[in-house]
Amino acid sequence: MNKKMIARMLGVLFALEALFMLPAIAVCVIYGETGAPVTGFLWTVALLALLAGALMLIGRKATRDFYAREGFIIVALGWTLLSAAGALPFWISREIPHYVDAFFETVSGFTTTGSSILSNVEGLSHGLLYWRSFTHWLGGMGMLVFLLAVVPTGKGSGYSIHLLRAESPGPTVGKIVPRMRQTASLLYKIYIVLTILCVGFLLAGGMPLFDSLCTAFGTAGTGGFGIKNDSMAGYSPYLQNVCTVFMALFGVNFSIYFLLLLREWRAALFDEELLLYLGIMLGAMFIIAVDVRPLFAGFGEAFHHASFTVSSVMTTTGFATADFNVWPQLSRSILCILMVIGASAGSTGGGVKVARILLLGKSLSAEVRRMLRPRSVNVVRVNQRVVSDEVLHSVNVYMAAYCALAVVSFLLISLDDFSMETNMTAVMACLNNIGPGLDLVGPTGNYAMFSPFSKIVLSLDMLLGRLEIFPILVLFSRHTWNRTR
Amino acid sequence: MNKKMIARMLGVLFALEALFMLPAIAVCVIYGETGAPVTGFLWTVALLALLAGALMLIGRKATRDFYAREGFIIVALGWTLLSAAGALPFWISREIPHYVDAFFETVSGFTTTGSSILSNVEGLSHGLLYWRSFTHWLGGMGMLVFLLAVVPTGKGSGYSIHLLRAESPGPTVGKIVPRMRQTASLLYKIYIVLTILCVGFLLAGGMPLFDSLCTAFGTAGTGGFGIKNDSMAGYSPYLQNVCTVFMALFGVNFSIYFLLLLREWRAALFDEELLLYLGIMLGAMFIIAVDVRPLFAGFGEAFHHASFTVSSVMTTTGFATADFNVWPQLSRSILCILMVIGASAGSTGGGVKVARILLLGKSLSAEVRRMLRPRSVNVVRVNQRVVSDEVLHSVNVYMAAYCALAVVSFLLISLDDFSMETNMTAVMACLNNIGPGLDLVGPTGNYAMFSPFSKIVLSLDMLLGRLEIFPILVLFSRHTWNRTR
Repeated sequence: MNKKMIARMLGVLFALEALFMLPAIAVCVIYGETGAPVTGFLWTVALLALLAGALMLIGRKATRDFYAREGFIIVALGWTLLSAAGALPFWISREIPHYVDAFFETVSGFTTTGSSILSNVEGLSHGLLYWRSFTHWLGGMGMLVFLLAVVPTGKGSGYSIHLLRAESPGPTVGKIVPRMRQTASLLYKIYIVLTILCVGFLLAGGMPLFDSLCTAFGTAGTGGFGIKNDSMAGYSPYLQNVCTVFMALFGVNFSIYFLLLLREWRAALFDEELLLYLGIMLGAMFIIAVDVRPLFAGFGEAFHHASFTVSSVMTTTGFATADFNVWPQLSRSILCILMVIGASAGSTGGGVKVARILLLGKSLSAEVRRMLRPRSVNVVRVNQRVVSDEVLHSVNVYMAAYCALAVVSFLLISLDDFSMETNMTAVMACLNNIGPGLDLVGPTGNYAMFSPFSKIVLSLDMLLGRLEIFPILVLFSRHTWNRTR
Repeated sequence: MNKKMIARMLGVLFALEALFMLPAIAVCVIYGETGAPVTGFLWTVALLALLAGALMLIGRKATRDFYAREGFIIVALGWTLLSAAGALPFWISREIPHYVDAFFETVSGFTTTGSSILSNVEGLSHGLLYWRSFTHWLGGMGMLVFLLAVVPTGKGSGYSIHLLRAESPGPTVGKIVPRMRQTASLLYKIYIVLTILCVGFLLAGGMPLFDSLCTAFGTAGTGGFGIKNDSMAGYSPYLQNVCTVFMALFGVNFSIYFLLLLREWRAALFDEELLLYLGIMLGAMFIIAVDVRPLFAGFGEAFHHASFTVSSVMTTTGFATADFNVWPQLSRSILCILMVIGASAGSTGGGVKVARILLLGKSLSAEVRRMLRPRSVNVVRVNQRVVSDEVLHSVNVYMAAYCALAVVSFLLISLDDFSMETNMTAVMACLNNIGPGLDLVGPTGNYAMFSPFSKIVLSLDMLLGRLEIFPILVLFSRHTWNRTR
């Protein structure tokens, strides 16, 4: 294993994180929060700089050997350590007194989950609120994609593909694979433009600049940390609608935007994953609106809240305008299922991903055909192209790993003896990077009551969910460590 | 499609069902229940005889063309129609006033689920109680396996394999495939001997003959219909222990008994599925016993109830000695997971089956190895033999179908607006052929409160679960019907 290269890249990541803390310090200064919050950031930046320097020194003579294993390890270690360091400002400033809580909150930020242990978000200083929301934005597109996009990698950047594969969500990065660096950079450009548009629309609706930035970070990363105790409920219907639309946009596979930029309208708009994503979303909005109609003044208002909630839950953002925990069972069940389905592959959203659901459905139907006519050829096609057995196989393996993980986590947090619905939806909300679940962890609740042990389990779930399980599994596999290659 | 052959075999099945109702009529006579119950049976037997005659007449000139499709259709139609007819005595006698309820109860019987809509089981007449329990025994090993075992099929019985494949649970019937008729007959012999042993042990503990027979039917088929309102709670600890042991025995893959008869001790006792099955079972018993210790007088009593409950839930029987709905969350969560895992393949139990869990786990671990060393060969072995990709693929497809089915059923019964835990565990309990779930459908509850629509959904789940989904899917596939072959 190329340990020096791993050290070097972790060093670069730490340096980047230190850099990204600087705007938060500026926010502290602007709001006159020059006490504990600034101290917290400064200590952390100093520590990160020191670590970054040391790691880059260790890795300065790294060879260029780089395989899938190295990619997985950098991604898994990188995300864990960035979260561990990102938690320090909360903890040093004592605004979150326990380190496990601060770690949970930061993992929740970077993984764009949005689950919180804070019962009074408004008690946080502006600098820390800004940093908390900014972790969503960084985590949404991925820190390593960022690194690929902006840091010169020298010629022969063979490792880009391993990093991008390990960090990117969804079963395929097929469409935009060649020329990694340009791809990564283009992805970030699309991401930045959409974020700026979101901020613009929010400002136009009269939202203050600070709120607009934080809300846009949470929307773009499909994270969902609110800066108000009532999440988005206190904002005007216009502002809520802006979020509904932008959450849905950030849940679209970014390769669709890429195709649109290339003016390949047909390929973009008739993409099967996109159509299924929109179909499920609109269907769920409509059914839930009908179901919750009696709770609101009219169908219009019911549809307003239903559409916001569906967009928020399906894209795994987690903002709320209404307490969907008290909605009828049909709506709650639909939301539970949307939690698992999640957003599109290659978006900033989490969950199993619409692309996987599509492939599972198609291979199921192929299987029934095969059973009836064993000698006929039954291939699975998406967008007119044959899907390889390897991709189908990896989808199945992913689902098996996903189920196993959900079951084990559910068992472990059951030790806290909260209701089954709380435990089940807490695991779902963390593993799929959503944020709120139902019952005690519903939109009006939070994760504070869990034991430190359960908080660590749930933090791991968030990381496993964001990194699509295998990088973390590889990190813990004995096969990774029992021989040096 | 060979419609005549389908008609003929359905005719034979109806004739068999009529035959199997005769002992129940005898029970009615013995207990002097000569009114409504006997009338119900007699009308049903007459109807079945008429139908059987007509169908056999239609099918008398059937050709011998027989493919997988025909096998699936006979199994799917056969089980549905046998349940529809088996429900008639309950309905005609007015002991279950609504036909949907009677159908639910009979499907629950044949599929060895044991979910009931009766709040007062003891109100049923002896004849109907006997028939209700006997459907478990018939459904446990399968009506078509019975047909293969006892009815002369003429030479060239090429269809046996299609029928056996369509009806038998679990991913492989590999070990005992050749000589179908002998196999089917041997399976039934083992089944009968074990049932007689169970009756003997129950009689030895002082249980009345009627109770012993009904309890043994429920145990052998891993069905779980009790004949008392408190299920097994009122019987002595000895009798409960007999059930604990026999439920566990009927949850073992019957090919293990086959191997034991051949004196292949090593192959039988070191079978990987058997070891995993016993490992999970004993592990769960021990953890739950520790967890529920405070609810009982001592660890011994706690272990007694924990072992009964684990054996009952994991083998998907569903008898109860204690109300596990009020146990701590850890125990409830473990029971939920055991519900899904289920018994061994090739046993009378339901669920996903231990063999599939084993294969999923092994292919997951092979996948992690493959990711680390893409060029190495990673095959999955069970009992030292390489598992073909086809088998692994079919396990994955099965899991996908299983999840999709659970999700859709969960949504549909959510319309009744009961708690999420009720809906979720009701679907699990029916799809995995267990019986009781948690909350409203817990051991002290029943399924009476569901709407007729939900009862039909849950009845379908029971059939889909027992027949392992694909026969029923094939029945509803347009590919089955759009061309005659």
